[in-house]
Amino acid sequence: MTSTLGIAVIGTGRMGADHVRRIGRTVGGARVVAVADPDGDRVKEVAAGLEGASAHTDPAAAIAAPGVGAVLIASPGPAHEEALLQALARDLPVLCEKPLTPDPAGALRVMEAEQRLGRRRIQVGFMRRYDAEYARLKELLDAGGIGRPLFLHCRHRNASSPSFFTSDMLISDSVVHEVDAARWLLGQEVTAVSVLSPRASSAAPEGVQDPQLVLLETAGGAVVDVEVFVNCGFGYQVQCEAVGEHGSARIGDGQAMVVQSAGRWGGEIPQDFTVRFADAYDRQLRGWVAAVARGRVEGPDAWDGYAAAAVSAAGLTARRTGRRTPVDMAERPPLYR
Amino acid sequence: MTSTLGIAVIGTGRMGADHVRRIGRTVGGARVVAVADPDGDRVKEVAAGLEGASAHTDPAAAIAAPGVGAVLIASPGPAHEEALLQALARDLPVLCEKPLTPDPAGALRVMEAEQRLGRRRIQVGFMRRYDAEYARLKELLDAGGIGRPLFLHCRHRNASSPSFFTSDMLISDSVVHEVDAARWLLGQEVTAVSVLSPRASSAAPEGVQDPQLVLLETAGGAVVDVEVFVNCGFGYQVQCEAVGEHGSARIGDGQAMVVQSAGRWGGEIPQDFTVRFADAYDRQLRGWVAAVARGRVEGPDAWDGYAAAAVSAAGLTARRTGRRTPVDMAERPPLYR
Amino acid sequence: MTSTLGIAVIGTGRMGADHVRRIGRTVGGARVVAVADPDGDRVKEVAAGLEGASAHTDPAAAIAAPGVGAVLIASPGPAHEEALLQALARDLPVLCEKPLTPDPAGALRVMEAEQRLGRRRIQVGFMRRYDAEYARLKELLDAGGIGRPLFLHCRHRNASSPSFFTSDMLISDSVVHEVDAARWLLGQEVTAVSVLSPRASSAAPEGVQDPQLVLLETAGGAVVDVEVFVNCGFGYQVQCEAVGEHGSARIGDGQAMVVQSAGRWGGEIPQDFTVRFADAYDRQLRGWVAAVARGRVEGPDAWDGYAAAAVSAAGLTARRTGRRTPVDMAERPPLYR
Amino acid sequence: MTSTLGIAVIGTGRMGADHVRRIGRTVGGARVVAVADPDGDRVKEVAAGLEGASAHTDPAAAIAAPGVGAVLIASPGPAHEEALLQALARDLPVLCEKPLTPDPAGALRVMEAEQRLGRRRIQVGFMRRYDAEYARLKELLDAGGIGRPLFLHCRHRNASSPSFFTSDMLISDSVVHEVDAARWLLGQEVTAVSVLSPRASSAAPEGVQDPQLVLLETAGGAVVDVEVFVNCGFGYQVQCEAVGEHGSARIGDGQAMVVQSAGRWGGEIPQDFTVRFADAYDRQLRGWVAAVARGRVEGPDAWDGYAAAAVSAAGLTARRTGRRTPVDMAERPPLYR
Repeated sequence: MTSTLGIAVIGTGRMGADHVRRIGRTVGGARVVAVADPDGDRVKEVAAGLEGASAHTDPAAAIAAPGVGAVLIASPGPAHEEALLQALARDLPVLCEKPLTPDPAGALRVMEAEQRLGRRRIQVGFMRRYDAEYARLKELLDAGGIGRPLFLHCRHRNASSPSFFTSDMLISDSVVHEVDAARWLLGQEVTAVSVLSPRASSAAPEGVQDPQLVLLETAGGAVVDVEVFVNCGFGYQVQCEAVGEHGSARIGDGQAMVVQSAGRWGGEIPQDFTVRFADAYDRQLRGWVAAVARGRVEGPDAWDGYAAAAVSAAGLTARRTGRRTPVDMAERPPLYR
Repeated sequence: MTSTLGIAVIGTGRMGADHVRRIGRTVGGARVVAVADPDGDRVKEVAAGLEGASAHTDPAAAIAAPGVGAVLIASPGPAHEEALLQALARDLPVLCEKPLTPDPAGALRVMEAEQRLGRRRIQVGFMRRYDAEYARLKELLDAGGIGRPLFLHCRHRNASSPSFFTSDMLISDSVVHEVDAARWLLGQEVTAVSVLSPRASSAAPEGVQDPQLVLLETAGGAVVDVEVFVNCGFGYQVQCEAVGEHGSARIGDGQAMVVQSAGRWGGEIPQDFTVRFADAYDRQLRGWVAAVARGRVEGPDAWDGYAAAAVSAAGLTARRTGRRTPVDMAERPPLYR
Repeated sequence: MTSTLGIAVIGTGRMGADHVRRIGRTVGGARVVAVADPDGDRVKEVAAGLEGASAHTDPAAAIAAPGVGAVLIASPGPAHEEALLQALARDLPVLCEKPLTPDPAGALRVMEAEQRLGRRRIQVGFMRRYDAEYARLKELLDAGGIGRPLFLHCRHRNASSPSFFTSDMLISDSVVHEVDAARWLLGQEVTAVSVLSPRASSAAPEGVQDPQLVLLETAGGAVVDVEVFVNCGFGYQVQCEAVGEHGSARIGDGQAMVVQSAGRWGGEIPQDFTVRFADAYDRQLRGWVAAVARGRVEGPDAWDGYAAAAVSAAGLTARRTGRRTPVDMAERPPLYR
Repeated sequence: MTSTLGIAVIGTGRMGADHVRRIGRTVGGARVVAVADPDGDRVKEVAAGLEGASAHTDPAAAIAAPGVGAVLIASPGPAHEEALLQALARDLPVLCEKPLTPDPAGALRVMEAEQRLGRRRIQVGFMRRYDAEYARLKELLDAGGIGRPLFLHCRHRNASSPSFFTSDMLISDSVVHEVDAARWLLGQEVTAVSVLSPRASSAAPEGVQDPQLVLLETAGGAVVDVEVFVNCGFGYQVQCEAVGEHGSARIGDGQAMVVQSAGRWGGEIPQDFTVRFADAYDRQLRGWVAAVARGRVEGPDAWDGYAAAAVSAAGLTARRTGRRTPVDMAERPPLYR
């Protein structure tokens, strides 16, 4: 007989709250039994909306709460390493929002702890792999539908960026998604990064280099260009065109409904990633819960989190120096092969 | 605490088998505990793939099996009425594939039985209401985004029809979906039906009038035209353009991924409704299970099933006589208002 | 050596003035030498902008002016017959804006006069045949690219109608273009017409039945549905989807440039047929001048004008009676085969 | 009275023959009176198809032939300078296919000769400026419709390249069009070029680096990325997305007709630039003839030809060295401001 999986949610900000709602609404067979957030009022408010969930300001206490069978980490990046190690110490399966850790060194430490357990416990929240359009593109590429991939042309746009967003975060927080998507779609590691920047948009906050053009080179000789533009004004948009030796394929146009009105044809651009990727988040969470029920952890792993951190680090150097920067990566441990 | 809902699935043909898979894979909080099908071998095979489910050739036995908390009816239309009455006799919530019953008279009898219980127990499987694109169109219309609707231009195409498909079934089995979609989108009953038929396609089976153009008029003065073409050869396609007093909106173009290859740009057309509406079927089933868990039945009700049957009946007359045929409908009982 | 063709333009309203500009700007090898319009001030103003062109209030005088080698008729429909007969009396090639004549009887008289000359002198301004998209659709159909045509689904929308537009003119002035396009695309005559009307849009002028759904049946067993909506508010739009035995083809989406801005993706809808069909008008006029230079008249002929008038007449009856109305047509004279 | 312009066509290869046909078919008011080509048989054959045109193997003889009022140069790039100087010596208006000259030095010499005449005589054949979609994009940018431009994302693809095509020619013959288009659209000079190359496609001829990603930076701080891929296999395709401070606009999708057939929706990709840009070539030629008739030369001038050559030269260096290369340009002479 199936029994309900008890989840501890670490972090109840925007992403965490979203996950809590998601578990209640679209994921059967699981429920939130503990929540943690340094903001005591906020965590109590979230817990109050849940039947039988305890509220904590200390992540370790939530992870150790009775009935916890799995941990979902949605706190800010710098807090991830500690929570991950605590979950691993209890041998609990984890779904960790990206980034795994902000820097490659932290990711290596987390991987070491997981390797000591001898089996995969961590899934990283690169939810694009669960998006229906990305899945179709991946399937096409894997089937050789357009031949060996030569280019990925990517667009990553946000209507506007939060006040704390810096020039670096365009790479470490936004392009990091394309880094994972490119590695996954191509099945290749990224070997070098260059960055070209137009004169900043007047809509960019003072001192923020927005937009940027980030160029990745891969081990198999593909080139990936990413326009990242986090104050584009018109909405949230993620597009990817793969160009292969004998064809191309593009996703992300999002033309589900075409409206004609007032002299124009067209449609709405979602304002937010929670809209564009709502189904992907749902599918990721259902997939994680279902795998955990079978005693497994699947999906993007700690190595994927580490690789993304290593490419990000090279990207930051490339942006600051204006030079093409090789990516420095450790050898891939057997657990992640 | 949540407990798992036990479902009896009546009919294990294509639709029934699909629902069984769906319950196992994407619907948490529910499981199949009994299956029924006149084909004893098939039903045993389906039950064998399920942990702890009993197999029956008699629907009544499946409905009465231990642990059954809800019934999903996916048998052929003529078998629906009996199964529905058996489920109602046990006061069980039901999800019944369309048609509710093949004829308006049977639907009236089912509604009478449900009214005697005094509360809604039946949801009819008009799954388009759960499709993301239809939902956006409905939202736009309800918000007045294109003004009062004047036309719905609909296309309903199948790559090919099963061998048993007749000229009548283009209306009673295919257009019936547009009838429900039109009633739901417009919030209006259909008052008259006309049918125009081009010379049958050479791909149509001998004696089958395929395609047809079915024209519906509604109580609010809208006109709905439906091209139904069940041997179109190129795939499964459901499109709808709503034209209002100051705009239009079209869904169903399905351009999620654009591929360029071998001198052409474009994409795949799904070959099957289970592909096009996979998410809608999932959402319908999850929604039904979640509502049942709260003690409720929501979604399209028996009145919607009856109305579809009444419009279908008028459509068959219109096709045979070549004349515009008014729809004859009973008064709407209070339970369904 | 080439010499310049002198053209008399009859009618200097919107269409006539457009043609005058067109001859000056994009049609080499021709020039306007005479213009006629009952509005003496307007015709003088138009002539003043042309080097060496004479102004007339009497069409006959313009047609008889020195240097006139061809006649372009752009006056209102009821004035066409007289001008056509005057041009034929002088054996001049004519480009006549649609309709050839408002009624079938007038068209028959014009055809008789042309038959007495024994060769084609008249081209009717069904300019859609010169539109690049229509040409591609015609080519596809003729090549059997989608098999025998079963349906044409047509949309004909104007942002708003002029004050003098009546319910009848939706058929005789607007749908008449689809009548010709359907006859040309399918190579079949129209045999019957039906009309269904939703409750009129609140944007329609008092007493005008706008929009309408006009249904044509053809000799080869195809069905053509035309949504005609002349106060749709959002722009000028002509679309056509041909559905054949094994495929469909759609033109008129007009997505040349896709703009993303302010939360929306999409593009502009032209507000006017002179924009949408600018190239078609240019190509029609250049084609006519080039053919005349070779001593010929090509393109849609007087029979096409007559057939359109006959179908229009049946359409008006169908709209008034609410009944399917057969089209009454004369036998096609040898000159037009 | 208008008189017919006599044109000498230099070069009767593919482009030259195309122009000859074009002058005969769609450009009134002009005719070819002399043709020149080193291939004596070919030039005689071309002349034989023209009424009253003389055939020459020496360009100078064709330019000096009786009745020549203007010169159209369509010979290979290295032959341009001599023909241009001969035409300028006779003070004749010229339409010169791109490149003006293969190298910046030659272009400077041509500009000097033109400056001595004291007025513009040369138009360079950057025909994209005459394409309807480019024109709409230019209009949008000039009107500030998407704010200050930050990026142009360009695709330039050919089904396959001619046998003589080299790695350099991807830049000097193909990307040169994007160089002019970018300068024209943005109204800015290009200041630096970088080139990134994926591992060459297996469809590329031995030794040819195809495809490439060419990155241009402009004086106003915009970044232009150009995917150039001349053996893409699937057709000829030119796309451009402009991204501005508050919107984006994309042209070149070319979705005029959408066909559904055999499990796919989509359309044809033209195999050839003469198809994609047929109207642009027509409009360019008609515009040139009409301007000459008014005693003027308009359109892209010798400075535009020079600038393209200077950027190309920097691009070749960037490709060979793998380094970002600044563009070295002379000061703009007053004649071209």
